[in-house]
Amino acid sequence: MKDYLVKDNWKIIEDQYHIEFNQISESIFSIGNGHMGQRANFEESFTGKTLQGNYIGGVYYPDKTRVGWWKNGYPEYFAKVLNACDWIGIRILLDQEEVDLHKAEIKKFYRELDMKRGVLTRKAEFITPKGRHLSIESQRFCSMADDEIGAIEYKVTSRNYNGGLALVSYLDFDVKNSDANYDEKFWEEDQQVASDEAMYVIAKTRKTNFQCAASMDHSLTINGGKSDHYFDYGNGEKYVEVFISGEIVTDGEWVYHKFVNISSSRNHNAESLLPDALTKSKAARSAGFELLLESHVDAWSKIWNTADIVIKDDVAAQQGIRFNIFQLYQTYTGKDSRLNIGPKGFTGEKYGGSTYWDTEAYCLPFYLSTTDASVARNLLIYRHNQLDRAIENAEKLGFSDGAALYPMVTMNGEECHNEWEITFEEIHRNGAIAYAIYDYIKYTGDQDYLVSHGVEVLVAIARFWSQRVNFSEAKQKYVMLGVTGPNEYENNVNNNWYTNYIATWCMDYAAESLAYIKKSHSADYSRIISLINFNESELEKWSDITAKMYFPVDKNKGIYLQQDGFLDKDIISVTDLPQSERPIHQKWSWDRILRSCFIKQADVLQGLYFFEDKFDLEDIRRNYEYYEPLTVHESSLSPCVHSILATKLNMKDKAYEMYLQTSRLDLDDYNNDTEDGCHITSMAGTWLAIVRGFAGMSVENDTLSFSPKLPKQWTEVSFKTNFRGQMIELVMSKDGNHLNNLSDSSIKVILNNKEFVVEPIGVTI
Amino acid sequence: MKDYLVKDNWKIIEDQYHIEFNQISESIFSIGNGHMGQRANFEESFTGKTLQGNYIGGVYYPDKTRVGWWKNGYPEYFAKVLNACDWIGIRILLDQEEVDLHKAEIKKFYRELDMKRGVLTRKAEFITPKGRHLSIESQRFCSMADDEIGAIEYKVTSRNYNGGLALVSYLDFDVKNSDANYDEKFWEEDQQVASDEAMYVIAKTRKTNFQCAASMDHSLTINGGKSDHYFDYGNGEKYVEVFISGEIVTDGEWVYHKFVNISSSRNHNAESLLPDALTKSKAARSAGFELLLESHVDAWSKIWNTADIVIKDDVAAQQGIRFNIFQLYQTYTGKDSRLNIGPKGFTGEKYGGSTYWDTEAYCLPFYLSTTDASVARNLLIYRHNQLDRAIENAEKLGFSDGAALYPMVTMNGEECHNEWEITFEEIHRNGAIAYAIYDYIKYTGDQDYLVSHGVEVLVAIARFWSQRVNFSEAKQKYVMLGVTGPNEYENNVNNNWYTNYIATWCMDYAAESLAYIKKSHSADYSRIISLINFNESELEKWSDITAKMYFPVDKNKGIYLQQDGFLDKDIISVTDLPQSERPIHQKWSWDRILRSCFIKQADVLQGLYFFEDKFDLEDIRRNYEYYEPLTVHESSLSPCVHSILATKLNMKDKAYEMYLQTSRLDLDDYNNDTEDGCHITSMAGTWLAIVRGFAGMSVENDTLSFSPKLPKQWTEVSFKTNFRGQMIELVMSKDGNHLNNLSDSSIKVILNNKEFVVEPIGVTI
Repeated sequence: MKDYLVKDNWKIIEDQYHIEFNQISESIFSIGNGHMGQRANFEESFTGKTLQGNYIGGVYYPDKTRVGWWKNGYPEYFAKVLNACDWIGIRILLDQEEVDLHKAEIKKFYRELDMKRGVLTRKAEFITPKGRHLSIESQRFCSMADDEIGAIEYKVTSRNYNGGLALVSYLDFDVKNSDANYDEKFWEEDQQVASDEAMYVIAKTRKTNFQCAASMDHSLTINGGKSDHYFDYGNGEKYVEVFISGEIVTDGEWVYHKFVNISSSRNHNAESLLPDALTKSKAARSAGFELLLESHVDAWSKIWNTADIVIKDDVAAQQGIRFNIFQLYQTYTGKDSRLNIGPKGFTGEKYGGSTYWDTEAYCLPFYLSTTDASVARNLLIYRHNQLDRAIENAEKLGFSDGAALYPMVTMNGEECHNEWEITFEEIHRNGAIAYAIYDYIKYTGDQDYLVSHGVEVLVAIARFWSQRVNFSEAKQKYVMLGVTGPNEYENNVNNNWYTNYIATWCMDYAAESLAYIKKSHSADYSRIISLINFNESELEKWSDITAKMYFPVDKNKGIYLQQDGFLDKDIISVTDLPQSERPIHQKWSWDRILRSCFIKQADVLQGLYFFEDKFDLEDIRRNYEYYEPLTVHESSLSPCVHSILATKLNMKDKAYEMYLQTSRLDLDDYNNDTEDGCHITSMAGTWLAIVRGFAGMSVENDTLSFSPKLPKQWTEVSFKTNFRGQMIELVMSKDGNHLNNLSDSSIKVILNNKEFVVEPIGVTI
Repeated sequence: MKDYLVKDNWKIIEDQYHIEFNQISESIFSIGNGHMGQRANFEESFTGKTLQGNYIGGVYYPDKTRVGWWKNGYPEYFAKVLNACDWIGIRILLDQEEVDLHKAEIKKFYRELDMKRGVLTRKAEFITPKGRHLSIESQRFCSMADDEIGAIEYKVTSRNYNGGLALVSYLDFDVKNSDANYDEKFWEEDQQVASDEAMYVIAKTRKTNFQCAASMDHSLTINGGKSDHYFDYGNGEKYVEVFISGEIVTDGEWVYHKFVNISSSRNHNAESLLPDALTKSKAARSAGFELLLESHVDAWSKIWNTADIVIKDDVAAQQGIRFNIFQLYQTYTGKDSRLNIGPKGFTGEKYGGSTYWDTEAYCLPFYLSTTDASVARNLLIYRHNQLDRAIENAEKLGFSDGAALYPMVTMNGEECHNEWEITFEEIHRNGAIAYAIYDYIKYTGDQDYLVSHGVEVLVAIARFWSQRVNFSEAKQKYVMLGVTGPNEYENNVNNNWYTNYIATWCMDYAAESLAYIKKSHSADYSRIISLINFNESELEKWSDITAKMYFPVDKNKGIYLQQDGFLDKDIISVTDLPQSERPIHQKWSWDRILRSCFIKQADVLQGLYFFEDKFDLEDIRRNYEYYEPLTVHESSLSPCVHSILATKLNMKDKAYEMYLQTSRLDLDDYNNDTEDGCHITSMAGTWLAIVRGFAGMSVENDTLSFSPKLPKQWTEVSFKTNFRGQMIELVMSKDGNHLNNLSDSSIKVILNNKEFVVEPIGVTI
């Protein structure tokens, strides 16, 4: 846990030079716009600890898998989002000296991420080893208005130096991934040109052949006007630079603007990739930094208008939730259904920028509520697009007849993960993908999606489950052997309650969906059953399985058992676990973790959260009270589910405690790993804890419903939600709850189990 | 399955050039002497497929572990026996041409491994691309009389070539392991000298700093006498050569002898390593090839005198069992308690030449019976020497108070394996190590070993088990969670019957051993309890556990359950598994294997084999009949156990079928993997199937006992066994059984449950 950042409602501020936390700050102060993003590396050369990172969404490299002992079915590669063109680079050369903050004496340092405007600012005043006293000030952003554009304003001011100054501004594709399994470079040279007319590099990824273009234009103002300076150009492998030299005097100021366009063959055809890029970088310079910034800030303003959560009188909480919302939108804007939400977004290399079940289980509701439904729909389309690969993946593992197993980790639909206990066994992800379809339709009412896309995915998933179970002669029930549930601190268990439950639910939901389509969309039904080669006898098989599915329970304790044999464990409360042994994933050997009763993240409770309407409150309470004390919450995805359930159970303090565990996870570097990147997907969990937890938002029979329970630590929280084209704002305060209908027609809303019609003018209840 | 080798009672013969099988032959025709060994690579240059391999026992490199995702407790390195000095190299240079059989037209080819004499012979007649017709003939051996000495006789005969001939004879430490995880070279240069006075290379292993010396001397005879030839010397990095040039004419013959001494700092101190080596290689040349060969053959003759098994009228079986005995003695001779038996011996790199539980579970009885008891004792001492490391290993996993977990794979006592399901969970290996002590004492009567060494190991193992179980409130029994049994096609199971059984047995045996020592060696007892810090309350804990240990059983079926939940599986017989899906470890994904009922190797049956005197025959039969049909025998260690039990159950055909599955495993390349090296440790299983199976040899109350059941396919089988200093021969034939007492005093022997006193002159019964 760290506490070096200034608390502010809208800004993240580092007001002193914390070299020891530089890599953490690089993660936290990252900027992005869904298409591209980058860590908060310095523009100028820096020899201190840094993880360079510039990323382009969807541009990946299939890095050869590294494994100790190979097992059949392992993927050949792990797709990694690439460290792409370093486009921010601006070196500062003085006479016989290059500026490097790591070697300078820092007099003042200030780094700010303005979340409202999406702008990263950095100011530094320093004295170089040769005694040159200078200031630099940079501002940069990845434009939300035009997601291929990045712009930097870079000022150098002399405090005491009179002499030569050169800025070397460059584009560099000759970069490595620090997580490359075999230290390979992933980029191949294509072309690079640096001249008065054009500056660009085109590079190609090895194997995947993504062609990416980085082009730049720029301008320089010296002392507010024109002054003598000289341009010189250079290039190297996958590299171009412009060398701008002149003189600076005490109190003199150079203001350099760099306008970059980053694009790829994912969005441009081969012929137009370069001309488009050059046109756009030139146009950006013509527009100028201020105008570009204005459009960018406007775009952010539109996002905040619907996505913001306002927490009054608690700056830390306000900053935390805004940071989470901000990073989620920097990572994924929903424009491109081929993109998804990497667990680290554009803030680091870890997890390869790939897609996990986090998207469906945690992130989808955030996008459903905070923006247009098309965004959440694109997240579903992403999986629909990858259905064939999911079927192939299942076939590799021995399944057949159109059964699909979605990968645990993927970039393009192919499995990337290679730990057998996860790759092959953590199959509940299939359930979350089906659940997301249900969740989307429940929220949006978009039944057409089911017909046009959803049902194909649902059937393929149901087929998987129906083949994955087997009938136990001993139990006279269907069982599911050899799985890993959401709690990854158990591997290869039998009858994980959560997995059995969601599998059953998937088969039922697929059957219901087919019945609905058959009844209401008979033409589509014929098309679909022919398309997916569906035989109605499959329905009988599914219903036989769901009727005879085995669920481990303990009747005495009145709980669902996490898995067969769970009660054979030595049951100890986490409170009896010495702090020195935590986190157990760092302190304990794996076998000890597996044998222990300690739970990494919500497992049975994840099921009760997803399907809370199927269980009575006492049921939920008994399970919560049994499992929560055994849970170490060593996944950032755990506390939010507990917070939501605790709110539901009126355990307000527990709910708030659990909320706090993730709300400032990265800002306070709670898990000591923010230097690898921020926990993007778990940020949605924090949002869930407020909106689905404290505000109790849900949809009941096509009606939006709230059951607000404001934590006693807060005075007022408000947020908007986009529900089927209407915008509703909920203000929960100590003094009561207030609903504002921000749309132009009335809406029926349930508040604390009572139905109200809210007119376009806000009413207080 | 391949069938390209000529069947012969004493020789392995390849009488045609099978380039496609060259790497298999390289494994099969390997030679070794316990200290060093090598694959049957050609002396001259060869550009065809080959796996170069020269190994020195105990000289290993801690290769940095390769792993996909790291888990706490994983070892930092995997110790690998190194590909060491290539000392056999002799290049043949003709005018403007180098001999390379891969590029030549082969007219005749003959390779022979004479197992009686331990000599590898190769003859080839060929025509080079330039039309030179030549023959070569080489003989070589690694001396059993002096295990640092290797010698080669290499003849080159011209059939039509008149011109320049040069032999380049070299020592080359600049070699790689083909299984190096990061393509590193493991050897560092030390010194190399090549001159008329001395030729040697000294190299050092990186990290482990083993210093190894290879020195050579040599002689050349041209056309039976002296003829003009010139010596020239060269060296390079870790490399020396002598270049001998002259002329050869049609029908002319060069006979070159190479005498090499390979030694290491394991057996010599730094000062004497080089002088000793030089002295010995010179002495070898002085003695000459014939004399060295004679001593070598004598040494083999002594081994065969006690270790041979004679099978009459079945050449394939005779060749098979002799090959197995031969390879076991090439791998381990028992002189050095710091060495052990790598699963591939000196025939390949796979499994790193490390020690597995195979030694105790399979190999120990072979050495117990076929040679002096000191050899088996050295195998026990090996583990005793490594006890401290086993305790450290257990500590890493969270155990304490002197509990030991022996590693799954080791070179020096430290764990090398890094698959959590094996490293941390396949803990039954601890049981086999304790069982070996019991087995040794039962056979030899050497109770003193228990006092001097054994009990320390037994107590440390018992302590481990007592900490590894936990009390299940649900079952009101002790349970053992999260293990992998001998059947590695199940991972992380609860209450593996075999593991629970052997754990209980270990605690009981440790307690009995302590009681015995307390009673009979009270002074030792005081020393021991002080040494190991033993508290008698531990005995109570052990007895509580063994009294309340949980064993999964199915009363209806009358079987012990392999593990909790086994009967939830879809139970299918292997006979219903299509041949196209076998072996499942190649055809199926890992999760499918885990979920299936198919068993890799004896598991419950391994327990019934070890502890057969504790179970009645009907018990064994029920379990055999239940589990054998589910067993795919995809471990080479499986069929022998089944063969022994089948013999016991009078299932003679099954016993023979199981015997055949391993007896020629490598000779017929049954598993398509002999090119990686031979299955050395499983060879002991074949021996067990004959001696403990067909001959029914056991020890009952300190008396040797036989219950012979000769397979009907055989007419006569005989072997000797060394029992407590006396040599007994059993001849089982269709006409009856015959015991010869080859010692000089009478001995009591049980034959088919009847006790006889066999006088030093053979008696027929």
